[in-house]
Amino acid sequence: MTDKKYVEDLIDQDDDFDQWYVDVIRKAELADDSPVRGCKVVRPYGWAIWENVQKALDWRIKEAGVENAAFPLFIPQSMLAQEADHIEGFAPEVAWVTRGGGKDLEEPWAVRPTSEAIICPMFAQWAQSYRDLPLMVNQWGNVVRWEDRPRAFLRTLEFYWQEGHTAHATLEEADARARQMLDAYRDMVETELAIPVVPGRKSEAEKFAGALHTYTIEAMMGGKHWALQSGTSHNLGDHFGKVYGIRFLDRDGERKFAFNTSWGLSHRVVGATIMVHGDDAGLKLPPRIAPIQVVIVPIWRKEGELTTVEEAVTRIVERLKPVARVKVDWRDDRTAGYKFNEWELKGVPVRLEIGPRDVAANQVVSVRRDTREKTPISIDELADRIPALLDTIQADMFEAAKRMLSEHTAVVDDYDTLAQRAADNAGWSLAHWCGDPACETKVKTETKATTRCIPFDQAEEAGSCVVCGGASSGRVIFARAY
Amino acid sequence: MTDKKYVEDLIDQDDDFDQWYVDVIRKAELADDSPVRGCKVVRPYGWAIWENVQKALDWRIKEAGVENAAFPLFIPQSMLAQEADHIEGFAPEVAWVTRGGGKDLEEPWAVRPTSEAIICPMFAQWAQSYRDLPLMVNQWGNVVRWEDRPRAFLRTLEFYWQEGHTAHATLEEADARARQMLDAYRDMVETELAIPVVPGRKSEAEKFAGALHTYTIEAMMGGKHWALQSGTSHNLGDHFGKVYGIRFLDRDGERKFAFNTSWGLSHRVVGATIMVHGDDAGLKLPPRIAPIQVVIVPIWRKEGELTTVEEAVTRIVERLKPVARVKVDWRDDRTAGYKFNEWELKGVPVRLEIGPRDVAANQVVSVRRDTREKTPISIDELADRIPALLDTIQADMFEAAKRMLSEHTAVVDDYDTLAQRAADNAGWSLAHWCGDPACETKVKTETKATTRCIPFDQAEEAGSCVVCGGASSGRVIFARAY
Repeated sequence: MTDKKYVEDLIDQDDDFDQWYVDVIRKAELADDSPVRGCKVVRPYGWAIWENVQKALDWRIKEAGVENAAFPLFIPQSMLAQEADHIEGFAPEVAWVTRGGGKDLEEPWAVRPTSEAIICPMFAQWAQSYRDLPLMVNQWGNVVRWEDRPRAFLRTLEFYWQEGHTAHATLEEADARARQMLDAYRDMVETELAIPVVPGRKSEAEKFAGALHTYTIEAMMGGKHWALQSGTSHNLGDHFGKVYGIRFLDRDGERKFAFNTSWGLSHRVVGATIMVHGDDAGLKLPPRIAPIQVVIVPIWRKEGELTTVEEAVTRIVERLKPVARVKVDWRDDRTAGYKFNEWELKGVPVRLEIGPRDVAANQVVSVRRDTREKTPISIDELADRIPALLDTIQADMFEAAKRMLSEHTAVVDDYDTLAQRAADNAGWSLAHWCGDPACETKVKTETKATTRCIPFDQAEEAGSCVVCGGASSGRVIFARAY
Repeated sequence: MTDKKYVEDLIDQDDDFDQWYVDVIRKAELADDSPVRGCKVVRPYGWAIWENVQKALDWRIKEAGVENAAFPLFIPQSMLAQEADHIEGFAPEVAWVTRGGGKDLEEPWAVRPTSEAIICPMFAQWAQSYRDLPLMVNQWGNVVRWEDRPRAFLRTLEFYWQEGHTAHATLEEADARARQMLDAYRDMVETELAIPVVPGRKSEAEKFAGALHTYTIEAMMGGKHWALQSGTSHNLGDHFGKVYGIRFLDRDGERKFAFNTSWGLSHRVVGATIMVHGDDAGLKLPPRIAPIQVVIVPIWRKEGELTTVEEAVTRIVERLKPVARVKVDWRDDRTAGYKFNEWELKGVPVRLEIGPRDVAANQVVSVRRDTREKTPISIDELADRIPALLDTIQADMFEAAKRMLSEHTAVVDDYDTLAQRAADNAGWSLAHWCGDPACETKVKTETKATTRCIPFDQAEEAGSCVVCGGASSGRVIFARAY
């Protein structure tokens, strides 16, 4: 295998962004096809990114007073069917267990597509008095929604996520909690993944099956500038409380139904990270979630040089281990050039090159993955300089993503421009919409752009619907979406 | 609810140990029945214990050079059926998905009972040359084995575990890896859960379906002194390599089949922790995995006292937060006595009581859950004394469990004694066995005791089989098991 070949197989983003995505996932060993239709295998390098995301979100969830628990993978058909909108929304996507323990089941079991229908009945047992509220649980796990056209991380039959579920005494408290957890998602995605998002509310057509309101964070991907829904939080009102009988005795002596929320963030954010930051050379991982933050590539030719370099690398690793996730690439069947390409493909934020002459100068050459900037750093200063450099890279990557988002978002006041922008993959359109689902459907049918969200952060502004000219009090994001 | 009632509901261990187990799980809110037959809900307090176990095992697995990944939940029937012993062993326990996405499947999918049959085909793709070996992956997740008589943590239709899978160039390397991972289990269970175990090899009848050898760690539970298999590690030989085609080009230029291992430890160790350490007052959690290590119970009557105590508790929490997992019980609708009982039931290792007179003396009263020993500790010394106390409790609990194990293990040289010990729940019997499955079956049928393992750590000793009198070269543990 020549040095060049490794990266040649990766198609340029501009030539075919979707193919680039498939290529980079395969070549960086993030995921692989599986023999199970619709399912992927998440390989160690991809899973390590997700583990870092999990850690970063888990403490935020716990900090918000929510505890982890585990509820069954299966939901009997009759339980799933209790909330009418919910079953109508999910039924087409469900995988059904009909046999077990050598017998046909009396009633089919759904493999959970989401867990409201199994958690709410437990809440009904646990919530007796207002003193038992709020109930706030989260579970990390797998769910299944049928999928014929899988894309690794973005859309797979089985996927990995967390789903939080809460029950409250009042609608106001439930709504505040739904908003609070969405903000935890925003904070995690922006801080850890360096991806700016637009938080807002989904339209009626786009909301979760059974919800009163669905809140979302939407992120802009690279390449075609499509949107990716990156986390949602639902105010379920008392729809689930009523059908599953979550009743509690309130302070005032009355028995009332509880108000619920649910919120989920899945491993599709790994897909977002790939698409937002990657370039023609491969992945570009934000330091905070990169499994390897610093890769050291020792360079030597002769045996004596190896000894010199080895001794220096040992010292360097000792200094860096406590402050960064470090790997040394000691392979002797690969050239330095090959290694440079490979670690760039894998998106490691910082590469340190060290050869005999560097050792003599008591330095390493650091190369940033995001800017390719090369800087010599004294070995003595590494323990201070590397963490600072990683912080800088994280901040710069976030700024770059913010620039992309703002450069490809436009205020649009007429239908033709909106349609043209969708056709050109020019980015998001902020346009007035009257709220009529018919107008939303027309845009979707004709341009494939959908309403992504009604951003929270916008000035109230009277305007005319870009489709029908009707009255509108604010703008909506229209965009193509994954 | 009176103070007494809370603990009264817990039956004494000696009266009915199995009922005690059920009671303590319900009252300490570790798990709950679910509406799905055979499945339980693991509640936050129970899940937090499992999370601590996961952390403690995860770093040991990574330290051993194994990386986490994720493989599909489903296994097509034909793939599961490739290894004959494997499918024969698991078929009766499998849950089958036969419909999905609104259609009948062409081929049923098993919900994984274990993942050899889906991981080995991936290994076959990844292992081309000896340079690709060993392949070593682990996954944390859920598996399903049909179960009609569930017991929380010990035996549920869906359960939580990790399963590690490796592929190697030689049988020797695979065997060493299987032994190494068993030792990681032993170290984790002994160090973190304070449960002594006996590592050894399973008999042919008791080994994993498809394995060459199964290694196990066996722990003795309290009450009836039955055994609990607490972790197993399998040397799979080349059985799976051959049927799934894991072939690699070796150094010598020959194409060879790889040798596999798999090893799993499940959330049943939470059940073990409950049964080994608990007493009539409830749980007794080893400090290293206790979700709450120190509970502070402030005591006050008048408003002025509350202010004084509050101020001191704030100072105490500030000191303890960095060194222990601390909770303060500020509830004002429960008496101190009720709280003492409840936190004992929940097994919190250390309780700190603090009232106005303690504040005046700049002290707290610490009470150990394991010995009930009360000691005043100066507030100024808490940050040093509490971590030391937790270490002492951990060590003492391990010693107590070791005493139980040794007191209820006997060297037995005749069949009647073995049978009587099994009937009396007297403990484990170390007896000679010729290796003939017929003798093993006779013991099982007549006494319900099974061979738990052939301990690694025993002197070679010639003897006569306790059943047939035939030649034996070592002793086996016979015991009733959960």
